[in-house]
Amino acid sequence: MKNKAISDLFALVREKRPLVHHITNYVTVNDCANITISLGAAPVMADAPEEVCEMVTFAGALVLNIGTLNKGQIESMLLAGGMANDRRIPIILDPVGAGATRFRTDSAQRLLDELKITILKGNAGEIGILAGAEANVRGVDSHGVTGDLVKIAQHYSKRAGLTVVISGATDIVTDGKRILLVENGHPMMGSISGTGCMAASVTGAFAAVADDPVIASAAALAAFGIAGEKAAAGARGPYSFKIALFDEMAALKPEDLASGARISIR
Amino acid sequence: MKNKAISDLFALVREKRPLVHHITNYVTVNDCANITISLGAAPVMADAPEEVCEMVTFAGALVLNIGTLNKGQIESMLLAGGMANDRRIPIILDPVGAGATRFRTDSAQRLLDELKITILKGNAGEIGILAGAEANVRGVDSHGVTGDLVKIAQHYSKRAGLTVVISGATDIVTDGKRILLVENGHPMMGSISGTGCMAASVTGAFAAVADDPVIASAAALAAFGIAGEKAAAGARGPYSFKIALFDEMAALKPEDLASGARISIR
Amino acid sequence: MKNKAISDLFALVREKRPLVHHITNYVTVNDCANITISLGAAPVMADAPEEVCEMVTFAGALVLNIGTLNKGQIESMLLAGGMANDRRIPIILDPVGAGATRFRTDSAQRLLDELKITILKGNAGEIGILAGAEANVRGVDSHGVTGDLVKIAQHYSKRAGLTVVISGATDIVTDGKRILLVENGHPMMGSISGTGCMAASVTGAFAAVADDPVIASAAALAAFGIAGEKAAAGARGPYSFKIALFDEMAALKPEDLASGARISIR
Repeated sequence: MKNKAISDLFALVREKRPLVHHITNYVTVNDCANITISLGAAPVMADAPEEVCEMVTFAGALVLNIGTLNKGQIESMLLAGGMANDRRIPIILDPVGAGATRFRTDSAQRLLDELKITILKGNAGEIGILAGAEANVRGVDSHGVTGDLVKIAQHYSKRAGLTVVISGATDIVTDGKRILLVENGHPMMGSISGTGCMAASVTGAFAAVADDPVIASAAALAAFGIAGEKAAAGARGPYSFKIALFDEMAALKPEDLASGARISIR
Repeated sequence: MKNKAISDLFALVREKRPLVHHITNYVTVNDCANITISLGAAPVMADAPEEVCEMVTFAGALVLNIGTLNKGQIESMLLAGGMANDRRIPIILDPVGAGATRFRTDSAQRLLDELKITILKGNAGEIGILAGAEANVRGVDSHGVTGDLVKIAQHYSKRAGLTVVISGATDIVTDGKRILLVENGHPMMGSISGTGCMAASVTGAFAAVADDPVIASAAALAAFGIAGEKAAAGARGPYSFKIALFDEMAALKPEDLASGARISIR
Repeated sequence: MKNKAISDLFALVREKRPLVHHITNYVTVNDCANITISLGAAPVMADAPEEVCEMVTFAGALVLNIGTLNKGQIESMLLAGGMANDRRIPIILDPVGAGATRFRTDSAQRLLDELKITILKGNAGEIGILAGAEANVRGVDSHGVTGDLVKIAQHYSKRAGLTVVISGATDIVTDGKRILLVENGHPMMGSISGTGCMAASVTGAFAAVADDPVIASAAALAAFGIAGEKAAAGARGPYSFKIALFDEMAALKPEDLASGARISIR
C-alpha cells in the first residue's frame, strides 16, 4: 500500500480542518469531540430536529452513532442524513450494539435503507448481524461471528453499495472490489470505553477530505492505530493510556503515517 | 471479616465479566463505563423504552441512577426494572439528589415502591430522606442527617426489605440483620465528580456474581476504596487522581483485597 | 486593576462554596462539573421541567448553555431562569453556536428576550451575531467578526442591559460603561473541547458570591486563565494539559490571582 497517499490525506485533514457533524451517544461524545480536535478537524454535536439539516450543510462529514439511540434521535439522523445525501456529504454509520436488541438492529437497518451510507463501521458482531451472518452481540461487545469476516464484509459491501469497515485486531476495509487490511493499533485500545466511537470520528474527518472512502477509512484507522501504538508505550494503565492517546493523536505527523502505516491489499 | 470471601468475589467478577446495564445520568456516564471496564466487567448504557427490557435480559445487574432524571427515563427504569425482577437480576438504585427536589424524592420513592430493589446506595442525606429521617440535601451533596446513621440504615433496610448502603468516610452496609462497615477509600474521592456513581457501577458488577448483596456491596466498596487509596498516593491533584483511579482499578489484584480490605462487622 | 479585589473574591468562592445549577450540553457537562468542584464550588446538573424551579432556589447562580439544545431543554431554561430572576439569582448564558443555525440563534435570542440574563458569555462570532454585527460561525467555532469587538460588546451591553463577555486571546468584559480586558490564558485552552463551557461554570461560581458581574466575570476569567497558564507549563499534549488544568485549578491560591491576574481597564 502506498503510504504516501495516506500521509498526504492526513496532511489534508490538518490543512482543511473539516467540520465533522456528530449525532452520537452521550457516553463517549466528549471523547469523540476531543479526538476530532486532536486530529486537527472540528467537531460539532447537534441532534435537534430543528437544526440538524442546517448544521450538516456546513459539515465535511456526518457521523451517526446509535450507542444510546432513541426514537427522536433516529428521526434527526434521517433528517440530517437526507440533507447530507442531497449535498453529497459522506455519512459514516457506527451501528453500536446492532444485534444486541431488536431496536438497535432495526434502527441501524432503517438508516441503511433510507439513507445512502458511505461507510458502515462496526465490530464483527454488529456488521455480521447487519450482513445476515450468524453473529453474537452482548451489550455493545462482539462475541463472535460464524464465517469468514472478509467474505462477509465483501459480500455485504457489494450488496449494499457502501464501504464496510470491520474493526478488530486487523481492521478490514472493503468496497466489495478492493480489500484493505489495517494492522495498526494496540490491545490497550480495547481497555477503555470509546475507541470504536472515536475511530468513526476520525474516519469522518478523513472521508471529508478524500474522494475514495476505502482509502479514507484505511488511512483513518492507520492514523488512529498509530496514535494508539505510541500511547501504549508509556501507559501505566487504561486511563493514562487514554490521556496519551489524545496527546499522541495531536502530536502525530504525516511522516509517522508514511513510516508507520501497516496497510496491505488482500 | 473474612477477606478471602471478598478477594474470591473480585476474582469471580474478572472471570465472569458480567454485563452491567446502566440507566444513568449524562454527567458521569463515561466514568461509569470506564470504571466498569477497568474493574473487569462490561458496561452497557441503554435507556430507550423500546429496548431496555430486552437489553437487561443479557445483564448480570441493572444500575439505576437518577442524577439527571427525566420522566421518560423513569419510565424506562420501571420497564427495565420489572424485567430484571422477573429474571431475578439484581437492581442497584442510586437515588442521586433525593431530598434536593420533590421530583427526585418522589421518583426514587416510586422506583422503591414499584420495583424490588436489591441494593439502595446513597449518601447520608439521600438515604436519610428516603428513610424518613431529618436530612439536608443541597444539589447532589449531603449536608447532614439528624440521628444515628447505622440505625437509620438498619431500620429502613428491615422495613423496605433491601440492602442499604450509606457511602461516607466509613461506608455502612446492612440488610437489617447484619451490619458491615467499610473503612477503605480516600478523601480525594470527594474531589472529583462521579465517584458515587462509579461505586454503584462497581457494586452492580459484584452483585452480578454474588448470592449475597451485603457481601457484594462491602466487597465492591472495599475494592473501589483500595483503588482510591492507591491512586491518591501519587496524585498531584483531583484529576491526576482520577486518571490513577482507573489505572489502579485495572491493576488491582485479588491479593490487594485480601490484604487491604478493611471491613468490620458491627 | 486592583488584584486584591479579585483574589478576595476567589477566596470568597472557596469559603461559601456556592451551588452552581447548570442546564447544559451533554458533550462537556462532566468537565463543567469537575471544574466547578476544582474551583471550590458545588455543581448540580438538572434539566427536568418538574424540578428546575425548585433546584435553582438553592443555587448561587444558574448557568445556561445551548451546546446541544433541544426544545424541551429551552423550556426548562425558561422555567429555571424565571425563578432565578424572581430570586435575584444571577444567570450566565453561554450561547454556544449562535449564528451556526437559526435554531441556536433564535433560542439564544428567546432566552435573552424572556429572561433577565446577568452575564452573556460567548466567542466573538456568537456575541457578534446576537449583537447584530456581521459575524461568521461554523459549528461551534467563531470565524471572524466585522468591526471593533470592544465597541460591539459595549453597545450591545448598553442596549440589552447586561454584562457581556467576549472570550478570546484577550477577553473583553463590559457592562456598557466599564470595559475590562483580561489577558490571562494560554493557546492550549483552545486545543481541547469544553474550555468555553468551563469558563461559564467558573463565571457562575464567582457571580454567585459577587455583587458586581463585571468584576465577577473578570475575576473568573483571570482565575481560569491562570490555571490554564500553569497547566500548559508541563503539558505533553492537549489531554495531559486538560488533566493539569483541573489539578491547577484545585491548587490555585488567592495569592496566585493577586500576583498573576492581568486585568486592565480600557
